[in-house]
Amino acid sequence: MKRALPLVFTLSRIENLMHQVSFDFAEMRGRIITNTTRVDKKNLQETLAVFFDVISAGLAVSPLIMMEEEGRRIKLKTACSLTISGVMLKHGIPVRPKGGGLIEVVGRKPTRFTDMLMYWATTVDPIDLLTAQGMTDIAGMMRTGNGRILGNLQEAPFPARDRIEELLEQLSAVDFAGILELGDPNMDVLGVSVERDHVGIALVGGTNLVAAAQEADIPVEHESISDLTEVSLMKHIDELI
Amino acid sequence: MKRALPLVFTLSRIENLMHQVSFDFAEMRGRIITNTTRVDKKNLQETLAVFFDVISAGLAVSPLIMMEEEGRRIKLKTACSLTISGVMLKHGIPVRPKGGGLIEVVGRKPTRFTDMLMYWATTVDPIDLLTAQGMTDIAGMMRTGNGRILGNLQEAPFPARDRIEELLEQLSAVDFAGILELGDPNMDVLGVSVERDHVGIALVGGTNLVAAAQEADIPVEHESISDLTEVSLMKHIDELI
Repeated sequence: MKRALPLVFTLSRIENLMHQVSFDFAEMRGRIITNTTRVDKKNLQETLAVFFDVISAGLAVSPLIMMEEEGRRIKLKTACSLTISGVMLKHGIPVRPKGGGLIEVVGRKPTRFTDMLMYWATTVDPIDLLTAQGMTDIAGMMRTGNGRILGNLQEAPFPARDRIEELLEQLSAVDFAGILELGDPNMDVLGVSVERDHVGIALVGGTNLVAAAQEADIPVEHESISDLTEVSLMKHIDELI
Repeated sequence: MKRALPLVFTLSRIENLMHQVSFDFAEMRGRIITNTTRVDKKNLQETLAVFFDVISAGLAVSPLIMMEEEGRRIKLKTACSLTISGVMLKHGIPVRPKGGGLIEVVGRKPTRFTDMLMYWATTVDPIDLLTAQGMTDIAGMMRTGNGRILGNLQEAPFPARDRIEELLEQLSAVDFAGILELGDPNMDVLGVSVERDHVGIALVGGTNLVAAAQEADIPVEHESISDLTEVSLMKHIDELI
């Protein structure tokens, strides 16, 4: 009798990739979690121009990109924010990715999650689902300071808060950023409650790059949290445009 | 200080509507849960033709439709499968909608869920998210017997199984159908496990109608599980085409 394949929820895929993260940010080498985007060659420069704006606005995880030719298309690998969770895990912090969602930004300040999907309860990536709904307004956020961006929420036990803060600063020093909020113990983060004795950490979604490209009507094919990439093979966007 | 609005997960919206169901299937009156679709007038006949095919193929919940003019557009209300959960609830069965997903059909037989999103863990309707991903193949299912359709999974305590079967038969007698599988106690339903001492019930998604219209490139605006409609005001599709 044919056995049905089990459903694979996004959290399993994330944990599988987090486990394989080997990012050494002092040496800038090792594997990070990446998103994969494919664009036609003729749209590459326009795509990179949008990516540059999103990175400059602080709405991406890192300015590093790996570019690869694939026939008439170019494959772009960009950093996924779950890299940061992977680094925390490799430093012994039991961090748990909770969900991906849309965050309302007012006056350049993230205010609250307006929509969210929990990673353990969906087989399709929340960020990819929300991007396809056309609910983002990243252009608005960049132009006026008001808009809707993609982000996610993580949780960790509150005694780890100082160590998390330290790690986030070290990552930030090598341009791995995108922390929207590190909550206080037991306090809501962007309107979402965290488990008792935990802190919440809200990160920008690396897919903001791609959602902004889609808002600009650039045809892209995209998969979030797709795989791992050796960080030393990636180039700063300044070298690419 | 401004309080953030809380996130409203789909399950809350569903339970709110289930609570308001007053469908009396013996008299064919009372409120049922409906989906709302808007199409341009010029596309109405083509849309109804697709709806007719989907209903004939047994991939919709009911042949009843309420049509209403809205300027240049027509609003179509069609039955949502959660009506069936609402009826079970009103007959004292503690039924719990679990999630919506994609079901692979082989040789006209539903075989397994290939993707699923849990209702309690998403603020956007799972079926609407999956429809936007273009992952359905309802046309394929209707043409060749192989394809991917929308469906959902419910759970109820197993001692209620006989009563559920009886209700499903009564509903089926008045053309409210779309039961894909009523599981045995503790047994997987289309590859998804159920809670201990429960039975799973897989139902076709009422949104198959609309996903099929989108597959046929008819532009539609759609919201699943949108509201309630008085069933006596709805007409059989045979009267409309």
